[in-house]
Amino acid sequence: MSAVPSLRHLLLLRPHLRFIALSTPSSPFLSYAPSHHFPPSSLRILSSSSSPTLTQEEADEAVGKGSSLIDVNPPRGTRDFPPDDMRLRNWLFQNFREVSRILSFEEVDFPVLESEALFIRKAGEEITQQLYNFEDKGGRRVVLRPEITPSLARLVIKQGKSVSLPLKWFTIGQCWRYERMTRGRRREHYQWNMDIFGVSKVRGEAELIQAVVLLFERLGINSSDVGIRVSSRKVLQAVLQMYAIPENLFTQVCVIVDKLGKITREEIEKELLSLGVSIEAVNGIIEVLSLKSLSKLEEVLGSEGEAVSELKKLFSLAESYGYADWICFDASVVRGLAYYTGIVFEAFDREGKLRAICGGGRYDRLLSTFGSEDISACGFGFGDAVIVELLKDKGLLPGLAHKVDDIVFPLDEELDGTASRIASSLRKKGRSVDLVEDKRLKWVFKHAERIGASRLILVGNSEWERGAVRVKNLSTREEFEVKIDELD
Amino acid sequence: MSAVPSLRHLLLLRPHLRFIALSTPSSPFLSYAPSHHFPPSSLRILSSSSSPTLTQEEADEAVGKGSSLIDVNPPRGTRDFPPDDMRLRNWLFQNFREVSRILSFEEVDFPVLESEALFIRKAGEEITQQLYNFEDKGGRRVVLRPEITPSLARLVIKQGKSVSLPLKWFTIGQCWRYERMTRGRRREHYQWNMDIFGVSKVRGEAELIQAVVLLFERLGINSSDVGIRVSSRKVLQAVLQMYAIPENLFTQVCVIVDKLGKITREEIEKELLSLGVSIEAVNGIIEVLSLKSLSKLEEVLGSEGEAVSELKKLFSLAESYGYADWICFDASVVRGLAYYTGIVFEAFDREGKLRAICGGGRYDRLLSTFGSEDISACGFGFGDAVIVELLKDKGLLPGLAHKVDDIVFPLDEELDGTASRIASSLRKKGRSVDLVEDKRLKWVFKHAERIGASRLILVGNSEWERGAVRVKNLSTREEFEVKIDELD
Repeated sequence: MSAVPSLRHLLLLRPHLRFIALSTPSSPFLSYAPSHHFPPSSLRILSSSSSPTLTQEEADEAVGKGSSLIDVNPPRGTRDFPPDDMRLRNWLFQNFREVSRILSFEEVDFPVLESEALFIRKAGEEITQQLYNFEDKGGRRVVLRPEITPSLARLVIKQGKSVSLPLKWFTIGQCWRYERMTRGRRREHYQWNMDIFGVSKVRGEAELIQAVVLLFERLGINSSDVGIRVSSRKVLQAVLQMYAIPENLFTQVCVIVDKLGKITREEIEKELLSLGVSIEAVNGIIEVLSLKSLSKLEEVLGSEGEAVSELKKLFSLAESYGYADWICFDASVVRGLAYYTGIVFEAFDREGKLRAICGGGRYDRLLSTFGSEDISACGFGFGDAVIVELLKDKGLLPGLAHKVDDIVFPLDEELDGTASRIASSLRKKGRSVDLVEDKRLKWVFKHAERIGASRLILVGNSEWERGAVRVKNLSTREEFEVKIDELD
Repeated sequence: MSAVPSLRHLLLLRPHLRFIALSTPSSPFLSYAPSHHFPPSSLRILSSSSSPTLTQEEADEAVGKGSSLIDVNPPRGTRDFPPDDMRLRNWLFQNFREVSRILSFEEVDFPVLESEALFIRKAGEEITQQLYNFEDKGGRRVVLRPEITPSLARLVIKQGKSVSLPLKWFTIGQCWRYERMTRGRRREHYQWNMDIFGVSKVRGEAELIQAVVLLFERLGINSSDVGIRVSSRKVLQAVLQMYAIPENLFTQVCVIVDKLGKITREEIEKELLSLGVSIEAVNGIIEVLSLKSLSKLEEVLGSEGEAVSELKKLFSLAESYGYADWICFDASVVRGLAYYTGIVFEAFDREGKLRAICGGGRYDRLLSTFGSEDISACGFGFGDAVIVELLKDKGLLPGLAHKVDDIVFPLDEELDGTASRIASSLRKKGRSVDLVEDKRLKWVFKHAERIGASRLILVGNSEWERGAVRVKNLSTREEFEVKIDELD
């Protein structure tokens, strides 16, 4: 049989279908780091519609020789979460949840699969160009959501009059993107979203930024590690008005100038010019976007407009909340999502090594794009990838070991019923109990260390005759004989 | 403009793409109940590749008249989780997690999107006939997983020698199926899985069943509400041997006889006969499957075989654990998954109104179907749908309201900075604080009731001049003036 068997050889009559792949190098086990998987296209699979056509002998031969190993990696650009990574993820999500609770937000969730229609926007955003979309068997265009805000807006519309505004919702969910060049970038991440509907003042943004700051503080990150850049799309809007650029170009201009620093100034210029923006206006826009001081901005735009007054109000509230040292004005912050209309912000590491840690802003006109009445809204998305990179860099990742209260170990096979009784009774008291059998005592001690057990409960014949067990406290190394009834 | 505008009218030049749908009746808001959504095919969407071709006037007209509402329902057969449903889901998952902790299992997770190859089995299982599969843009066959066990097995193989056996993992994840007739059935559900690798004895199954029982007990369900039927695929194996039926038909026979009670006996007979099973054997199989007593089974199969001895051992351990009243032998339990090899079990409501609440069993030969060495294994899947139906029926759904500690309310707009300072300081102490502005006091009191707030903190000018606020305890209705520094 050759290394890559023919399809015919693979069509087995055996109960468990076997399929064969070229074996692939196993990737390093870093779920929270970009993975470089061997392309799954090397995996050769059977079509489920094929019917078995080979003889019993051929089938037996194929099975007898054993199949090659399947690709043991998850699909390209995705992660498994083995226990260590899962503990880290749970710890991070727990912090997301706790901050959301403190800000009195309620948790919601949506299907990871959504109608494509929710995400179709024509402003040229990166996010809509990388949709993980496909047609389902019923001919519907569906998508593994790239972001959560549109689902949130959909549910707000659906709830209609039954909800009382303001509404404060958070969610933690997986988001997907499909990009052809995935080197070093993943196709999925989890995102914490906090959103407020029905607060038109910058109080909304001020609350959101406090949540972000409280999260950082809980994780041990301070304002010398991380800053939050703040600006407003109304700055751009004002500049566009200065140059009499039609309002309907606003979103496209925002999406283009968001690429400043990612593509060259020449390319930005070219894109803006092709929209019909004059070269004079292009220069004016880029000049304003370079401002890093609110007073300079006031000089350029005057103090009457909403852009300046809202930003000033936000910085004043930041003083009151006590997080002024975290935030700074930076006109270059535009954010890549089409629907932002006002204040926008993003958190960044001050060393400048990482991508934005989170980003958000006001989106007062999203609902009308869905055919509903607008409700003023703001929110942010906070991914699980960059923050973990930052925590790693700063040595702030927590040690999160598996913790078990008791190991129950019968020293004799005949005592397995007794061991069951003891384990069951401890478990009913809420203790976490690992019941171990068919191992040597030496293995059990090593195992106890590995799973961080507090006590080892040895069930032996002689103690059992006295209605007792031996209990070893694994931190103090003390050992006692304890009556079964007194065990707790 | 007609009710259903032409595609041409939909191609707008406006920044936010608008798309138009026939408005659909909003479905009843029962996320945990089957939903009967209006078919999303009524939603007419724009192709993302269309380019705008209509004139500015036409575009303005389309926008000016406003778009019809999008379909506000999630994709057919899927659920949103608004706050009430999310609290219920979190409560249920928290119970899953707590029982898993008590049994000393570690949590893991996998991508909801997997390679199709992991799920292709040819035994005719319902689960593989309803794969939510598609080809991604890179031409890979992928699937929204229908179940979690194959991913689990994949990760066990990937971890290889780095894990110490036995290994006890649990996971809670969303699973998908695509079926054309979805009336009353959903396309996704969440499933709690507990799996043990490396325990070949029925101790494994005994532990799993204890977990299921502990979960029921935590939820307030007792053994007069719910039972757990237990059998073993080795019963069928023994019967097949009695009739000299080739071993390679075993899995297919299991999958067929699992349909007993769902399709007619005639259809079962027909399917078995077409496999090459004699009518004599068919009758023998069906007769054995009707047995409900272990001693009867022993009469038929003798007491030497693994089927009988393992079942007897399991029932004896059940006595020791203290859950014997929950379980009963029922030879008709086969379970629909192809890969089970030994003990199988399922929990059912004793009134017989619902589908199986959970199901599981031993699958000692799954890993070799993936080209790896086998490791003995057993596990179960426990969905989030049937259990909630049962809890509803029994009146056991918990009351889970939103709970907030404090509402901070400035009585004067100028005090918004002060209110920020107070809210921020309480939040840093871990209290959940809702900061309310621009509302009437009457609204605030109603709101406080709605969100279950414990205290109302009124920030007014006269108190503030004394460095104090008014604090109203909302359960006792008492009101105090409290110095800011003493507020906690």
